[in-house]
Amino acid sequence: MTDTICALATAPGGALGIIRISGPQSLEILSRVFRGSGDALTYPANTIHYGHLVPLLQEGSGEVTPHKVTPHEILDEVMVSVFRAPHSYTGEDSVEISCHGSRYILNKVLELLIACGCRMANPGEYTMRAYLNGKMDLSQTEAVADLIASTNKATHQMAMSQLRGGISTELGHLREQLLRLTSLLELELDFSDHEDLEFADRSELLDLTKKIDNHITRLSKSFKTGQALKQGIPVAIVGKTNVGKSTLLNALLKDDRAIVSDVHGTTRDTIEDTIDINGITFRFIDTAGIRQTTDEVEQIGISRTYSAIDKARIVLWLIDAEPTSEEVQEMHERCKDKSLIIIFNKIDIISNRSTESLFSHLSSLTSHLLSITSHLLSISAKFGTNLSNLESTIYQTADIPSLQENDIIISNARHYDALTRAHAHLERVLNGLNNELSGDLLSEDLHLILDTLAEITGGQITPNEVLGNIFKNFCVGK
Amino acid sequence: MTDTICALATAPGGALGIIRISGPQSLEILSRVFRGSGDALTYPANTIHYGHLVPLLQEGSGEVTPHKVTPHEILDEVMVSVFRAPHSYTGEDSVEISCHGSRYILNKVLELLIACGCRMANPGEYTMRAYLNGKMDLSQTEAVADLIASTNKATHQMAMSQLRGGISTELGHLREQLLRLTSLLELELDFSDHEDLEFADRSELLDLTKKIDNHITRLSKSFKTGQALKQGIPVAIVGKTNVGKSTLLNALLKDDRAIVSDVHGTTRDTIEDTIDINGITFRFIDTAGIRQTTDEVEQIGISRTYSAIDKARIVLWLIDAEPTSEEVQEMHERCKDKSLIIIFNKIDIISNRSTESLFSHLSSLTSHLLSITSHLLSISAKFGTNLSNLESTIYQTADIPSLQENDIIISNARHYDALTRAHAHLERVLNGLNNELSGDLLSEDLHLILDTLAEITGGQITPNEVLGNIFKNFCVGK
Repeated sequence: MTDTICALATAPGGALGIIRISGPQSLEILSRVFRGSGDALTYPANTIHYGHLVPLLQEGSGEVTPHKVTPHEILDEVMVSVFRAPHSYTGEDSVEISCHGSRYILNKVLELLIACGCRMANPGEYTMRAYLNGKMDLSQTEAVADLIASTNKATHQMAMSQLRGGISTELGHLREQLLRLTSLLELELDFSDHEDLEFADRSELLDLTKKIDNHITRLSKSFKTGQALKQGIPVAIVGKTNVGKSTLLNALLKDDRAIVSDVHGTTRDTIEDTIDINGITFRFIDTAGIRQTTDEVEQIGISRTYSAIDKARIVLWLIDAEPTSEEVQEMHERCKDKSLIIIFNKIDIISNRSTESLFSHLSSLTSHLLSITSHLLSISAKFGTNLSNLESTIYQTADIPSLQENDIIISNARHYDALTRAHAHLERVLNGLNNELSGDLLSEDLHLILDTLAEITGGQITPNEVLGNIFKNFCVGK
Repeated sequence: MTDTICALATAPGGALGIIRISGPQSLEILSRVFRGSGDALTYPANTIHYGHLVPLLQEGSGEVTPHKVTPHEILDEVMVSVFRAPHSYTGEDSVEISCHGSRYILNKVLELLIACGCRMANPGEYTMRAYLNGKMDLSQTEAVADLIASTNKATHQMAMSQLRGGISTELGHLREQLLRLTSLLELELDFSDHEDLEFADRSELLDLTKKIDNHITRLSKSFKTGQALKQGIPVAIVGKTNVGKSTLLNALLKDDRAIVSDVHGTTRDTIEDTIDINGITFRFIDTAGIRQTTDEVEQIGISRTYSAIDKARIVLWLIDAEPTSEEVQEMHERCKDKSLIIIFNKIDIISNRSTESLFSHLSSLTSHLLSITSHLLSISAKFGTNLSNLESTIYQTADIPSLQENDIIISNARHYDALTRAHAHLERVLNGLNNELSGDLLSEDLHLILDTLAEITGGQITPNEVLGNIFKNFCVGK
């Protein structure tokens, strides 16, 4: 970390682009390319300065020195923000240059900084430096990436809670309890020949261990929710061609336009086919409609649709006519571990009486499906009839526990992995306590648990390999 | 301009997103949603502050007041930069909020600011306010948009020179000369009955007028260059299918990868098929190769290719065998006002002797084309042979005057239009002087010229309609 790094921290293509410099040479490098009022080297921390970025002149000896510039040579009119160690994001001296958002200019500025001795930052290197300088723990650095990737209320809250140290605090409590358990056991070991000392009895230790295990299990279990919230809950809309699958999807997507999308350059394809209902993402899996051109092709269509069902957690079965009992049976088989919502579409073109009779027929047909589905709705995708009802049905079906103020949700696979291993060690401790195993063996497992949980926040020295894995998925510039 | 505006100033999708606020309420609005150390209302100009953005609580009376927040409710951890009038980009109080680059967060922050009374900025509204507050003239505001859109050295230099007041200064010189001419004429008018006063004789006035006209003409003429530099010089690669057009294009594009492109989310399609040679953009027009499936289809192919030629300024005619004299004749007809470069491809698979004989044949065939073309090259697109030679040939053919340090290039159609009208008025003055027209008529035209040139910098009050036209093509956030 003796080198100084630079990177573009914003997406290219806007009115502004921010280039970040961090490292011991940040201000020296700035002073060589920036002309503002006064000497950049002496700019106080947390101040902003207007000026020009100017090129360097390569002189005879290969030495690079500043020189007089004409308007033609000015690279950009910029604002620079100066931060000084340790009061910066990375904990190092840093500079942020606010340039005009031209790719050409941003490239030239990066080239200039590299010519001055900067190195292009690796993905996540700013945040890694923040971790290595003690500005945040590992779970918080992961929260930074999650925060940038957050797309709705649920993912935003999980990331923000983790960034504000939610998981770290929770693990701190666990650690305290584990240390208490360990010290009680070790006290027993060290002083076991002192007959006049009283030790905690095994049933007390067992209670404490069970309490810790409950705590770890609760965190572990939250991973399913965390993953669902983070990746979106997979939903398949299945049904025959022309039953209105696309119309329904478009109708559900309709309100998904964002303020940011008004900004030039934002395209719809970034939103993909996801729908936010009450702050939770539902991810729609594309299903090829069942085409009835020939029986053979129909079979392919059906198998495609069923493979979509396999990936889904919720299946919307869209129909516009009575399904055969074979179709109902097949769907029943396929959806055993899913939530199935049967949706009768096109109520706009069917009389009320027909709808009623269809519904009663469907109810009788699907009565044996009641074990897996509790929902049967009628809608008009075309006219949006009953769609809000469908949305709340989808939301309820997802069965996401509503997040309470201080709920800690595990959403990171690395954390889940550590918790799972900690849980396995703790089961051994529980068994050991039940089988009157000697304290030194139990103590060994407890130390393993402490180490395993410490991996999550990186409290102990974290191997480079692990750091590399954590930061490789960051964007450059963060 | 009594309202306070907000907008995202960076492209969405990066590690950071910058939201700008500008207007009289900027700091008051900040203080309602930002929790940092101290009172945001009292933050000094040009300082940066770390803190949290927090939501507003809607209370009974409809009054919106801050409230205690839990980690879950924190919208973002941000850095805010405070600027105070008149020392800001717009000349108003302004705030820049550096958020995490999540679209969700950026949307929520904008929503929050709007709830506090901000209005979403229109495209270019920040720069328009800068103009209206006297921070820059109109030609400089246009330079801001050009700077953001600049893609290479030439467009960057033109925009930077214009932003640094290059055109404004040039027009200032012109204005001085015109005022001198006007005052000389008006002096003559006012004191024409004072026989004892000496006036400039008409030949002196004529000389001054011609000098001014030369100046305006020189600026007008630079528009052709300015447009070519700004929009890129259109080049068509024509030739039969499989002659190697795509291979050649890819070979020319090969070095066009940029540092910024390494940033996650940058895609190749933004670069399009343009090639930079010595800082000048050459824009390649897609030509459908001439397919020889049937004669009819071939004709369609040929007509497509010729329509591409019509749009081009430089035509690269790629061949891998002797063209027929009809083909040569046809190309000659089509390229009369173009530059034609005949390129013989695939020298890697043809022996030197064949190349020589082909070349001599081609030379004889194309000898009567010499009036329109001076270039005949042989290359291997596949192996990159002679490509740098081709590049310099293309560059020379474009015949762009090299930009000198203080050259003023007109690249804006609005400026060109004003200069053209000024030139027309000046021609009338010239004729009038030659025809001994009375001074008061000439003076009227001179005042029209002054007004017309003032349109460029907006020195006089500029109608809203004109401002609307200038700023509508800006991005939001600038």
